[in-house]
Amino acid sequence: MEAFLKEAKNASRILMTISGAEKKRILLEMAQGLRDNTQALINANALDMKAGEESNLSSSLMDRLLLDEKRIEAMAVAIEEIAALKDPVGRILDGWVTEDGLHMQKVTIPIGVIGIIYESRPNVTSDTAALCFKSSNVCVLKGGKEAQNSNESIAKILQDVLEANDLPRALISLIPDASREGVDKLIKMDKYVDLIIPRGGAGLIKHVSENATVSVVKHDKGQCHTYIDKDANRENAIKIAINAKVQRPGVCNAMETLLVDSSIAEEMLPRLKEAFDAAHTELKGDSRTQAIIDVEHATDEDYDTEYLANILNIKVVDGVEGAIDHIVRFGSGHSEAIITENITTAEEFLNAVDAAAVYVNASTRFTDGGAFGFGAEVGISTNKLHARGPMGIEGLTTYKFKIYGNGQIRG
Amino acid sequence: MEAFLKEAKNASRILMTISGAEKKRILLEMAQGLRDNTQALINANALDMKAGEESNLSSSLMDRLLLDEKRIEAMAVAIEEIAALKDPVGRILDGWVTEDGLHMQKVTIPIGVIGIIYESRPNVTSDTAALCFKSSNVCVLKGGKEAQNSNESIAKILQDVLEANDLPRALISLIPDASREGVDKLIKMDKYVDLIIPRGGAGLIKHVSENATVSVVKHDKGQCHTYIDKDANRENAIKIAINAKVQRPGVCNAMETLLVDSSIAEEMLPRLKEAFDAAHTELKGDSRTQAIIDVEHATDEDYDTEYLANILNIKVVDGVEGAIDHIVRFGSGHSEAIITENITTAEEFLNAVDAAAVYVNASTRFTDGGAFGFGAEVGISTNKLHARGPMGIEGLTTYKFKIYGNGQIRG
Repeated sequence: MEAFLKEAKNASRILMTISGAEKKRILLEMAQGLRDNTQALINANALDMKAGEESNLSSSLMDRLLLDEKRIEAMAVAIEEIAALKDPVGRILDGWVTEDGLHMQKVTIPIGVIGIIYESRPNVTSDTAALCFKSSNVCVLKGGKEAQNSNESIAKILQDVLEANDLPRALISLIPDASREGVDKLIKMDKYVDLIIPRGGAGLIKHVSENATVSVVKHDKGQCHTYIDKDANRENAIKIAINAKVQRPGVCNAMETLLVDSSIAEEMLPRLKEAFDAAHTELKGDSRTQAIIDVEHATDEDYDTEYLANILNIKVVDGVEGAIDHIVRFGSGHSEAIITENITTAEEFLNAVDAAAVYVNASTRFTDGGAFGFGAEVGISTNKLHARGPMGIEGLTTYKFKIYGNGQIRG
Repeated sequence: MEAFLKEAKNASRILMTISGAEKKRILLEMAQGLRDNTQALINANALDMKAGEESNLSSSLMDRLLLDEKRIEAMAVAIEEIAALKDPVGRILDGWVTEDGLHMQKVTIPIGVIGIIYESRPNVTSDTAALCFKSSNVCVLKGGKEAQNSNESIAKILQDVLEANDLPRALISLIPDASREGVDKLIKMDKYVDLIIPRGGAGLIKHVSENATVSVVKHDKGQCHTYIDKDANRENAIKIAINAKVQRPGVCNAMETLLVDSSIAEEMLPRLKEAFDAAHTELKGDSRTQAIIDVEHATDEDYDTEYLANILNIKVVDGVEGAIDHIVRFGSGHSEAIITENITTAEEFLNAVDAAAVYVNASTRFTDGGAFGFGAEVGISTNKLHARGPMGIEGLTTYKFKIYGNGQIRG
């Protein structure tokens, strides 16, 4: 593992010398490479599908694992879209002249070597490799073992394009030891690896966070809330609440708990129940909710659970302060929303709630790189530092100061 | 420790509600508090000085530990300067309207609870507390045990000002258990602590980095180089090399190794030796250097040593590529400089060298918050992410997205 990572680190230097035009051209070749090797990819994937069947993978996991012509075309198109992004490296973030006459430039640079740990979907392999290459980073990938054949086939195609362009294959690679022990080595190799991005279940993320010596950008749970204030536009409130829960319940920016101001609970809860019943949402509520509508009881554990399913907790709270108290206690810092027409209440909520994305009068479902206008995303960070919320290609850069003097010495 | 940190975390909410004007006024009261309690501070410090004498602390450590009227006045002035800084919280870093009509604001916010681990100088206690308070962060401080009485006395004065302003004392506090075990608990309390900043020896920083589950911004070693290119202005080269090594050898931005282009080594090394001899610098060099001037032999270990003393390694390298190779191998990513009049060579160096600060024709000694124009600094980060290089008060903030909609739902 150490020799492998050392090679990756060494390879990273060459990325400093490749122009944006070259990176773009090579990415387009990679997209074409996937198309040209569609049959080989399908054959490799068939091995994973067969093994998955034999080990009784769930139908949803089998579906995530599957590669067909349409999905391979989508992977190629995703790389082409990444190729078309503006080069994130070399951007001048700030610039000034110091009192000593030094001309300062704060300039974006690649992070270096990025380790990405993810699960079943093979398209993550090509998406991530393309995002890292576009941002001049080396990636070392650790996909799910159920997709090993598919991932190896994808990596080989991308590496063949690198080699045809006289670039080291080590710029994009799968880690040689994909076992738990291999991962444990990877996350401690801070000498060679600059960032680890774990994407996957809570167990994986916890393990990586607790054991890594390399910096980690987590993509952790979204315990998202929507608070309906007494000054809410009622139609917006119902429309947004339904959208935040129902439109795609299985994702991290979906709402898990709806908070309703006590002063409008009697009016709103029956209307909300009607709407959620029509959407087949399973509702749970605290005793104040249960006093108004007929729902199951919600426990503290429920308020702490990311259902990723069409199940919703409801809680009656006393005003915006009550909503904030609940969010401080149970929120995961992902996405939170208030529905109100009152500007002072809105600002109180926006300022007091500490989350990556805090909304007024909109669905929490908008928290992603596409909706934010970032283009392709690496994921949605729940870190408080470096990248917070949707992590676009800019999140794969850091910066340095270039400093131009003409003989300055320190006095 | 857990109850203590939980209280710190809870206290952090109140900082969201204090205006910039209040923070400024309270900081000025803290500065005055130090002045008004000069005698109490000197008395507390005398206990530390006595214990230091009894345990045979070195004279340089004793000097760092000492508080007298002049130093206490300087601590008060430092707080006043921090009070005068622009509020780093609430700054809009970016803003746009998405395709869905959401008005996006990327806004700076405090990080939350910051743990700072440092060594002997008591003024770090008041500086750090003031920087954290100005940026609306709670600080939990762990100073050197040799300064425990001084630090407690400083913290008490600042806490008394907080209390007089109806604010919780927990906003600024020393950790209750300052033992190694206490630190080990602190750095794993990611539930309550958002960032750890270790300042001190290599052993401390390594231990914290390897064991923390909280994010860490390191203030690690500076293995800084200056490369004299064949196209250097000779006078600048000598002047800058001398300044980078000699002006203050004991700091992290001082040069440790001088790289000289082989094509000018015969001309420049004798002139450099003359200048460094006059500055009483102890010189070491590789065999190509030794073939030209009479110096001790420099080993690979020397090239990897941060002397923090008036000792310098010299190495003859072949052009800018040779310089870059050496820096890739031995540099610590802190500060690196090239002396050249050639713009293409300068840009090659600036682009290829990965360090927080890369200089053309200036001394590496400029890498600090004051010289960069950041005002008071928390330290000089050797992290690659979050804060890189001089870490001003902006480095104590992160951001969130405030998102203003008018009923948007996801399609």
